[in-house]
Amino acid sequence: MILIQGGTIVPVVSPPVEEGYILIEGSKIKKIDRGKYQGKDYKTFIDAKNHIIMPGLINTHTHIPMTFFRGIADDLPLEIWLKEYIWPLEAKFIKPDFVYYSSLCGITEMLVSGTTSFCDMYFFENEIARACEDAGIRGFITPGVLDFPTSSFKTPRDAIAKAENFIKNYMKHPIIHPGIAPHSTYTCSLDTLKKCKEISEKYNTIFHIHVSETKKEYEESLKKHGVSPVKYLHNNNLLYENTLAVHSVWLDDEDIELISQKKAKISHNPESNLKLGSGISPVKKLLEQKVRVSIGTDGVASNNNLDMFEAMRITALLHKGINLDPSVLNAREVLKMATLYGAECLNFREIGTLEEGKRADIIIIDIEDISTIPFYDPCSAIIYSLNSRQVKYVIVNGKLVVEKGEIKTVDIEKLKKIAKEYRERIKNAI
Amino acid sequence: MILIQGGTIVPVVSPPVEEGYILIEGSKIKKIDRGKYQGKDYKTFIDAKNHIIMPGLINTHTHIPMTFFRGIADDLPLEIWLKEYIWPLEAKFIKPDFVYYSSLCGITEMLVSGTTSFCDMYFFENEIARACEDAGIRGFITPGVLDFPTSSFKTPRDAIAKAENFIKNYMKHPIIHPGIAPHSTYTCSLDTLKKCKEISEKYNTIFHIHVSETKKEYEESLKKHGVSPVKYLHNNNLLYENTLAVHSVWLDDEDIELISQKKAKISHNPESNLKLGSGISPVKKLLEQKVRVSIGTDGVASNNNLDMFEAMRITALLHKGINLDPSVLNAREVLKMATLYGAECLNFREIGTLEEGKRADIIIIDIEDISTIPFYDPCSAIIYSLNSRQVKYVIVNGKLVVEKGEIKTVDIEKLKKIAKEYRERIKNAI
Repeated sequence: MILIQGGTIVPVVSPPVEEGYILIEGSKIKKIDRGKYQGKDYKTFIDAKNHIIMPGLINTHTHIPMTFFRGIADDLPLEIWLKEYIWPLEAKFIKPDFVYYSSLCGITEMLVSGTTSFCDMYFFENEIARACEDAGIRGFITPGVLDFPTSSFKTPRDAIAKAENFIKNYMKHPIIHPGIAPHSTYTCSLDTLKKCKEISEKYNTIFHIHVSETKKEYEESLKKHGVSPVKYLHNNNLLYENTLAVHSVWLDDEDIELISQKKAKISHNPESNLKLGSGISPVKKLLEQKVRVSIGTDGVASNNNLDMFEAMRITALLHKGINLDPSVLNAREVLKMATLYGAECLNFREIGTLEEGKRADIIIIDIEDISTIPFYDPCSAIIYSLNSRQVKYVIVNGKLVVEKGEIKTVDIEKLKKIAKEYRERIKNAI
Repeated sequence: MILIQGGTIVPVVSPPVEEGYILIEGSKIKKIDRGKYQGKDYKTFIDAKNHIIMPGLINTHTHIPMTFFRGIADDLPLEIWLKEYIWPLEAKFIKPDFVYYSSLCGITEMLVSGTTSFCDMYFFENEIARACEDAGIRGFITPGVLDFPTSSFKTPRDAIAKAENFIKNYMKHPIIHPGIAPHSTYTCSLDTLKKCKEISEKYNTIFHIHVSETKKEYEESLKKHGVSPVKYLHNNNLLYENTLAVHSVWLDDEDIELISQKKAKISHNPESNLKLGSGISPVKKLLEQKVRVSIGTDGVASNNNLDMFEAMRITALLHKGINLDPSVLNAREVLKMATLYGAECLNFREIGTLEEGKRADIIIIDIEDISTIPFYDPCSAIIYSLNSRQVKYVIVNGKLVVEKGEIKTVDIEKLKKIAKEYRERIKNAI
């Protein structure tokens, strides 16, 4: 058993508890209470005095194997970025070994900055799963499906078969949660989308898809299908509880109404949407319609980091600014987006809050730090002031993976060496 | 002499130099070159292998004595925030001892996160100057002037006399650069504004003023003066080279034209403008008109931290997003805003770039870190991916003030203790 004693517990579903403790048994939270734990039956003790104890952050959209492409092509129009940089590099480099190490690099960055779960859309899913298991992060891994061939599959039929196989292999896994990810309505035929939906329903797993990211996508859908991307999904019965619609920047009021009615979920990726010049999702309206909006970073080729504290802060600030209203998306709401709503968006309600019986996915943050002096309110510190480097301990599924700010499960020096080797090859290929 | 050897030098005015060195003599940069320094005449050696060496960041708008109010009142409308929280707390707490320690706390946060200069608007300027000298940061300190009484002065005449006295005392100081700060056009009479301008011209120092922060301010200026705040300043000969107009969110095209013509300067504070729901400054247009736009954090009561890397990132992302164009405000431009343009905005051109003969205000950043692996391009890393905690060495005016990430000039434990005492008193007063 692990005992976390002292500090301010932020359960998310209930008010903060000052000076309490959390007892972890196996993969779960056994007990949370005020005061001091009196038993002696724990093996590991974490002194959390002057720390915040909160659920690990949930990043609901990444392309984690792209981490080695961090910052190779900034400040470019989407078309040039994709066609002249990303796609040629992917064609050249995306192979199992690259996927494993590039994922491991991104996963390490996520863990040390307080993210305990992420939802990924990419290929070579087995390599990503291996990196998750080795590093000890919770991975919602949704193999990508496209109508054109990639280095991982030749046809959408292949891709779907691979995804189904992956789901079967991992559906009972403690930290790997498989799903399926048709890339978008403009890269997947209706037939492909429907087959992916069948798999999603059959295994009750998420249907992870980019939706209405750019104005161009929205307008081309109108031209091609006569309706918006959201209505196209809806008309074809593809908008449902397990649909995780990523980006969703270009939504009209009817789209928002449909998403709300069908209880589809949203992954809001503000940094990527800003950086690529895609626009700003109407998150205020979505939340007002009771839509579950979670937060994602997107891949580092369009962000360029995986820091969820930064993503939360930008979410909180941005929607106040564009709505000219400082009360929009308050700290408590944004904290929920990155924890509780993340869990709901990923259809796995055993995480995202600190409650007895839930999985022990917990982060512990030092608040006696120059960025949070003086310390008044935990939600305010989490959303508006702290630096992700103040995360000192990270526990995933009951296992301590970050201790005193250092990752315990990954050989960092080896990873740096491999990253440098790939960097040289990538630099020569640009 | 200090020798910084190895690493990637980012001079800002010229392309990065890989594997070079910088020699510092006294307060200035004596030599910058490629390769290895062959002399032995240095006293301090900094191994900058796998580091970026760049000019210290310049934060052009703060209210540093408010640091102890960090996060006391978030997510509130401006009026309630000011009238129910900030002003009553200021009336109760703003005294010399508070100003010194609260400033020292903010200055420490700035130094460890790579800011070497800041421009402050507040009262008890001698205490702020003392905190700057003790911590070793470059302070552009501009005493605030208002038409109503504060705990520091009774009348605007008093305030202006104090400011002039402060300017006289510090105008030859190596790291304290005095100026004057009429608060705004709605809190200072025309007479007050004109007297401040006289002082600014007499001593060739900056005229630091909040301008057109909110829609309300813009509309009330139209109602009261028949023109926008910018045109009101212009019509009264108050818009000139030394004018540092802070926020400048609500600008029409004529305002931008006037600012450009008169070579007035702008401090853009994106986080504060978003958080308070003020709006978004038309920075793209300002830069297109060759206006010098620098970056500020504002005080921590409306941000809530002083991290200029975060402020740069949000600046770079925000304007791409609202202009739907990923090529707007590229990494190199934003880096200039926080360095070279900052120096120009503060009318002190001896900082902001790395060049022989300039002041040695330098920061050294570890890039062998999980947030910047792999590392391709220094500007991309600086603007889009790195964490401010990667700053390892900070030199201001030739003096090493941060070493291995730790502040050398401030007794942190004592500061924490004092911050906690004030926190208890402030909590009881809210």
